[in-house]
Amino acid sequence: MTTSKLVYMFEEGDKSMKMLLGGKGANLAEMTKTGLPVPYGFTITTDVCKAYYENGKKHSPLLDEQMMEAVRKLEAKTGKKFNDSKNPLLVSVRSGAPASMPGMMDTILNLGMNDVVVKTIANTTNNERFALDSYRRFITMFANVVMEADRMKFENLMDEIKHKNNIKLDNEMTTEMLRELVEKFKELYKQETNEDFPQDPIEQLKRARDAVFRSWMNDRAVVYRRLNHVPSDWGTAVNVQEMVFGNTGEDSGTGVAFTRNPSTGENKFYGEFLMNAQGEDVVAGIRTPNKVEELEKILPKVYQELVDIRTKLEEHYHDMQDFEFTIEHEKLYMLQTRNGKRTAQAAVKIAVDMVNEGLISKEEAVLRLEPAALDQLLHKQFDTNALKLATPLTEGLPASPGAAVGKVVFNAEDAKSWAAKGEKVILARLETSPEDIEGMHSSVGILTARGGMTSHAAVVARGMGKCCVSGCDEIVMDEAGKKFTCKGSVVKEGDIISLNGSTGQVYVGSIPVVEPSLSGDFGTIMKWADEFRTLKIRTNADTPHDAKIAREFGAEGIGLVRTEHMFFESTRIKAVREMILAKDLEGRKKALAKIEPFQQQDFEGIFTAMDGLPVIIRMLDPPLHEFLPKHDQVKEIEELSKELNTTPKQIEETIASLHEFNPMLGFRGCRLAVVYPEIMEMQVRAIFNAALSVSAKGIKALPEIEVPLVGNIKEYTPLAELTHRIAEETGAKGKIHYTVGTMIEVPRAALTSDVLAKEVDFMSFGTNDLTQMTCGFSRDDAVKFLGKYVEKGIYEQDPFQTIDQEGVGLLMKHAVKLAREVKKDIDIGICGEHGGDPRTVEFCHNIGMSNVSCSPYRVPIARLAAAQAAIKQRTGNDQQKFNK
Amino acid sequence: MTTSKLVYMFEEGDKSMKMLLGGKGANLAEMTKTGLPVPYGFTITTDVCKAYYENGKKHSPLLDEQMMEAVRKLEAKTGKKFNDSKNPLLVSVRSGAPASMPGMMDTILNLGMNDVVVKTIANTTNNERFALDSYRRFITMFANVVMEADRMKFENLMDEIKHKNNIKLDNEMTTEMLRELVEKFKELYKQETNEDFPQDPIEQLKRARDAVFRSWMNDRAVVYRRLNHVPSDWGTAVNVQEMVFGNTGEDSGTGVAFTRNPSTGENKFYGEFLMNAQGEDVVAGIRTPNKVEELEKILPKVYQELVDIRTKLEEHYHDMQDFEFTIEHEKLYMLQTRNGKRTAQAAVKIAVDMVNEGLISKEEAVLRLEPAALDQLLHKQFDTNALKLATPLTEGLPASPGAAVGKVVFNAEDAKSWAAKGEKVILARLETSPEDIEGMHSSVGILTARGGMTSHAAVVARGMGKCCVSGCDEIVMDEAGKKFTCKGSVVKEGDIISLNGSTGQVYVGSIPVVEPSLSGDFGTIMKWADEFRTLKIRTNADTPHDAKIAREFGAEGIGLVRTEHMFFESTRIKAVREMILAKDLEGRKKALAKIEPFQQQDFEGIFTAMDGLPVIIRMLDPPLHEFLPKHDQVKEIEELSKELNTTPKQIEETIASLHEFNPMLGFRGCRLAVVYPEIMEMQVRAIFNAALSVSAKGIKALPEIEVPLVGNIKEYTPLAELTHRIAEETGAKGKIHYTVGTMIEVPRAALTSDVLAKEVDFMSFGTNDLTQMTCGFSRDDAVKFLGKYVEKGIYEQDPFQTIDQEGVGLLMKHAVKLAREVKKDIDIGICGEHGGDPRTVEFCHNIGMSNVSCSPYRVPIARLAAAQAAIKQRTGNDQQKFNK
Repeated sequence: MTTSKLVYMFEEGDKSMKMLLGGKGANLAEMTKTGLPVPYGFTITTDVCKAYYENGKKHSPLLDEQMMEAVRKLEAKTGKKFNDSKNPLLVSVRSGAPASMPGMMDTILNLGMNDVVVKTIANTTNNERFALDSYRRFITMFANVVMEADRMKFENLMDEIKHKNNIKLDNEMTTEMLRELVEKFKELYKQETNEDFPQDPIEQLKRARDAVFRSWMNDRAVVYRRLNHVPSDWGTAVNVQEMVFGNTGEDSGTGVAFTRNPSTGENKFYGEFLMNAQGEDVVAGIRTPNKVEELEKILPKVYQELVDIRTKLEEHYHDMQDFEFTIEHEKLYMLQTRNGKRTAQAAVKIAVDMVNEGLISKEEAVLRLEPAALDQLLHKQFDTNALKLATPLTEGLPASPGAAVGKVVFNAEDAKSWAAKGEKVILARLETSPEDIEGMHSSVGILTARGGMTSHAAVVARGMGKCCVSGCDEIVMDEAGKKFTCKGSVVKEGDIISLNGSTGQVYVGSIPVVEPSLSGDFGTIMKWADEFRTLKIRTNADTPHDAKIAREFGAEGIGLVRTEHMFFESTRIKAVREMILAKDLEGRKKALAKIEPFQQQDFEGIFTAMDGLPVIIRMLDPPLHEFLPKHDQVKEIEELSKELNTTPKQIEETIASLHEFNPMLGFRGCRLAVVYPEIMEMQVRAIFNAALSVSAKGIKALPEIEVPLVGNIKEYTPLAELTHRIAEETGAKGKIHYTVGTMIEVPRAALTSDVLAKEVDFMSFGTNDLTQMTCGFSRDDAVKFLGKYVEKGIYEQDPFQTIDQEGVGLLMKHAVKLAREVKKDIDIGICGEHGGDPRTVEFCHNIGMSNVSCSPYRVPIARLAAAQAAIKQRTGNDQQKFNK
Repeated sequence: MTTSKLVYMFEEGDKSMKMLLGGKGANLAEMTKTGLPVPYGFTITTDVCKAYYENGKKHSPLLDEQMMEAVRKLEAKTGKKFNDSKNPLLVSVRSGAPASMPGMMDTILNLGMNDVVVKTIANTTNNERFALDSYRRFITMFANVVMEADRMKFENLMDEIKHKNNIKLDNEMTTEMLRELVEKFKELYKQETNEDFPQDPIEQLKRARDAVFRSWMNDRAVVYRRLNHVPSDWGTAVNVQEMVFGNTGEDSGTGVAFTRNPSTGENKFYGEFLMNAQGEDVVAGIRTPNKVEELEKILPKVYQELVDIRTKLEEHYHDMQDFEFTIEHEKLYMLQTRNGKRTAQAAVKIAVDMVNEGLISKEEAVLRLEPAALDQLLHKQFDTNALKLATPLTEGLPASPGAAVGKVVFNAEDAKSWAAKGEKVILARLETSPEDIEGMHSSVGILTARGGMTSHAAVVARGMGKCCVSGCDEIVMDEAGKKFTCKGSVVKEGDIISLNGSTGQVYVGSIPVVEPSLSGDFGTIMKWADEFRTLKIRTNADTPHDAKIAREFGAEGIGLVRTEHMFFESTRIKAVREMILAKDLEGRKKALAKIEPFQQQDFEGIFTAMDGLPVIIRMLDPPLHEFLPKHDQVKEIEELSKELNTTPKQIEETIASLHEFNPMLGFRGCRLAVVYPEIMEMQVRAIFNAALSVSAKGIKALPEIEVPLVGNIKEYTPLAELTHRIAEETGAKGKIHYTVGTMIEVPRAALTSDVLAKEVDFMSFGTNDLTQMTCGFSRDDAVKFLGKYVEKGIYEQDPFQTIDQEGVGLLMKHAVKLAREVKKDIDIGICGEHGGDPRTVEFCHNIGMSNVSCSPYRVPIARLAAAQAAIKQRTGNDQQKFNK
């Protein structure tokens, strides 16, 4: 496994050598190669680490030989020497694995310090305090990392001295105090390790190097690798680099800069620096840093050098860079550069600008954007500065993004009536149910104490593009009392609260909100995305309103109209209940006839909104008991019995007879249509009559009728026949182009998709139910253990948010393959929550699906993710993934 | 498709020509070939039927040509002629498809009758009444079958005449009345069809033939074929056969006989006959038939002929035959022979006898038995004669076979206390729950008003081998009032009832019971079965008692010990509840320590009973809330709170927090062990300590530790590690041979069985859960629609009784294949209800599984089914299936 070359000077490598030199080593080599002023150094390869573990923690004799050779070269390049009485060399020793493992392994700075060198440095820098401070830091790190001494004991010693002298901050310590501290540290070191603090820099280096190799196998690192699927035989490299200091006087300094503005994306140099300071001082925020432009006045030559580097970096890396620099006695050093983090808005602007500047291709621009981050561009947000000043009352789950400010109400009725009076309201509920839909519509935000990311509230709110925080379990909800309490605070009806649906935070009071800006750059990049994309993007929409929004966001059709929400509307719920309580077919038909005109109106609205685009309409899916009052809603039952001219007892009996032990696996979906075909007949008739009616107005309706929860072809066949019969009866046959298809939600359907494909026109994976049944846990109940499961890495992500590719995904892949063997071009899509998840979209593209459908506000995200998947597949480019 | 030969004389065919001649035609040909005195005739092939439909219901001109040729041959053989003035030929025209479709298509008898022939026959038979009766039957059938006239109109005419003459039965009609009737029938015929009744026998024949071909496509036949998977392009043949009459005088007669006694299996001629009668008279039971031996006195020559035929039949068909004969003027005719139906007891005796007589091989003997019928031999039964006289009160589901008589009690407590006093009791419940287990043990039978074939009551009763009738939905159960009502009758505590668990019937009062007889023949045939069988048969047993019974029935190990039943026992349920209510790990461990000694005792008992045989023990599986009182059991909660020194409110809160929407898909199985490993640790420790303890007494324990509900290898790995750790801690490592494996219940586990197979020692399909999740319906809720589904043929059988081979079975096959690719010899079994279903056992054998496990009383059934599967696979013999 080991080659004979074990040590590389930075100038000998480049970024392609990540596996051998580790990420940091390859990056330092690349910067060096690019001609950037990087402090000199060398990298000991990952092969050495592998050999170290293979040979029982021993090194080849070659290693020390090559390392000494590298030290000699380093001394020559820097003009410094270990232990030199005039210009002593200090180095840092850092880990660096092929995959980023932030903070998991060890680092040692200021190596080369000893009792003599500290004095030399005090003299040459004329700064004894700096020399002593560097020495005490080195002793602590060496003791802790190499000798595994307890870091706390060192910190306690320092606290004692600070306490004795009545000071609080480290930088208030005087030279005298530091001198005392160094002596005490050396004593402590001896006490803890039974040896004197080692004075020979070469011995220090060898021992530090091996400590870094050992840290590859520390507990934290092992767990991190297991969770992140980093193979343990990759090993880490060790980087040895000349130390440079920005705190050696007023001609020194340190800073952080971005090649463009990471907040707005503006193509303008952006950064901060502090003179006579170390990197951590900039971050700590004790002194206020200067803007990078101000350096021009202080050190004009260095500033010009930085400006040149900015250009060079972008030309070399083809992306906005975030870099760290240090100035040591007017000499500029580059310590690190990496792709800079940026807001979604900046990401869009930078990507478009860079294409226009000829720095990157359109494909690269599309690949650059993080699809999930687009959410920020599509929803209201709190003003960033105002948010910094606010303290959240509590935090729930970020169930549906955006920001909302309004008066709290505690039931759907109040939400409607308050909204009718012009109030902005936030609906707070223990959990929502289908009866709350209208109240949710009337609210600007929804807050629930119970329920996860896929609870009713969360799903419906995302569908509406409405801000929602769910599962706020610190809240004790008192709906009847119209108040909630949280950590002692009481929030009453009418009180103003603010919800951040993007973070899950809940605030008392009002926080200023900024509107989303759909700038021209955003449109440009989405247009590029559409050029590359092959997967069609549809939307899940139950209303003309949602359909319109989604169409504006680029939806190419509706992938799922859920008809059950329509059944709950106050104008028709009575007829629905009448149907359920009917004693015979005739009674059911009579009640259904009352619902039919409403259904036809629903579909006319949706067809009109989607003129010319296909619309998948799912037949009634939920178990019938969902439409009845609950068994303990005595008052509702009594009212209903009067309305329907029956007795409360009879209604209670129906409720009891419809009770299910596992409603998820109960009498729902196409099972309803198989047993009560008249319900589906009514829906299909309403669809065809709606299509005919809008056609007369010149609108093109393309209904796709979807049978849910099919597990067996023999459930489907008679229902498809029913549909064709109604098409004839209504006169739609030959006039309206329609198709009939099925959802794939039941594992049995996926397993027999070849049999289904022979008969159906299209298939659509209902991945929520498919996940529930394939993994054997219901999304409502899994909250009890799924958190623990994700924490333990049993599932990498919540499988209700991102498709479990190794399980559910395997089944989907199998089903697509089987179906395409029978009917090559069959339309296969996905609807449900997963359709808007970028990783899932990529997976759907890769297994050869035709379309995905997601909530309106996720349509742009899905478009982008689909484009990225297509580009990656075409170019085999998985670099992107690796760089994350 | 058609060959040039369209018509076969009976003597030209044989039984191998079923596809061409149909079942009946091939059978008549075979009997003819065997030299049996079959009335002469010919068969028009199924090819003619196919061509008829392919050519728009037209025949090739060849057909009439060949049919006339066949008629001429028939006339020559019989010495009779159509329309002959001395000896006129009458024939029957019958359908006969390659697959049996009883009663689905049409038949016409007495064809050839007309106004002249009726007189000729009246003269030659000297029996005008007979001639007229035959003619009026022919007219009715022809009108109905050929002309599609309403049969009721003919029957009404006959009723009128009977009413006018004040008689009730057909055979009371005089010659005069029949003469009048024939005239009226001919008038009615003309009125209904606008033609005179056709007098030309050849025209009659052609029209009857085509009517039979048309009946292939009648609604009944089409539905029957769809439900029974008979391809509609097979077509039917038409058989034309000389009529013979047993009612032409005292030298004529008719009878039915079996070559051996179908009730006991005794090798003795067995049958009944009536002189001067038609077949339907024997069946109708109006006259009491004579025993076949008595024929020796009446017609000694014919009797001897019959005795010879009996021997010939068995020599030819190698099975006990059930045949029909007619004697026309002292001449014997064979009308039909087929394998005779028999009791299970007879089946066993006949099979063993025939092997001893050299008639069949052991393989054939084993294949002959219907595995499901063995149930009769393994349980108590009601006395057949007594049963005939009893009228059931109601009928439920035959949930667990056997017969039980006892006094009704309405709760488990009473069952125990009454049984302790020596009473035989039947436990009647709305539905049973785990708390009823001890009460069920104390009862001789169980009756529930709710729940299906796989309800708690049914599963547990079958496990105990106890008679159970479940889902008696006509019963209104009043447990509190200690009574039930059914159709107006009230049954109170202490009343005696009788349950037939094999039919589901419930009787008020006591019916005599006979004990099962496990005769020597039964043992012999099971020994043969074991010689051929390759699949291992295990049992599901939770107690040493069940384990012992199963071992006596031939179980080769335990495939499933459910540990949860043990948790419900009154001695430990308190500690179980204490564990669930504990606030922290320490509290849980304290409670578990109380349960551990009991668990160890449980396992010691089972290991002792199964000395030397492997025992799969499943870790705790059900959701924890099952062990707590229900939320409305106020009294129980209060008692529990006192016992555990807590408040009712806290218990209520725990119950509420454990509530699940879909408990099937909830927090159970290995999910419990992942979150609370201490529970599994306790169980594993109890297993190893039990094994060590019995080892000290010279007993060989072979524990196989099973992790339930695994869906992801990452759930399994740490639990296997836990097991190995406990093996070391208890000192079992190296001393006790143990294995660790998993159930395959979650579709995801089946889909990734290759990944699992790398780590597990064994796998066992939990097909109940696998079916629920793969098909997406819970067995408790599916009752609402599954009946309708089976009725509509969506599932051929209840998938909870017989594996759904086209769905769930596909997944199992896939999983076995994947697992064996990774670990060729891995033990793969099945436990749960399906393990005792013969079709499922055959399927398990065919997909390469290693073992099946079933309830103790089904072990012999599974042994036999496994042997049959092995024989069929070896010989490729699927004839058996076809003959059914």
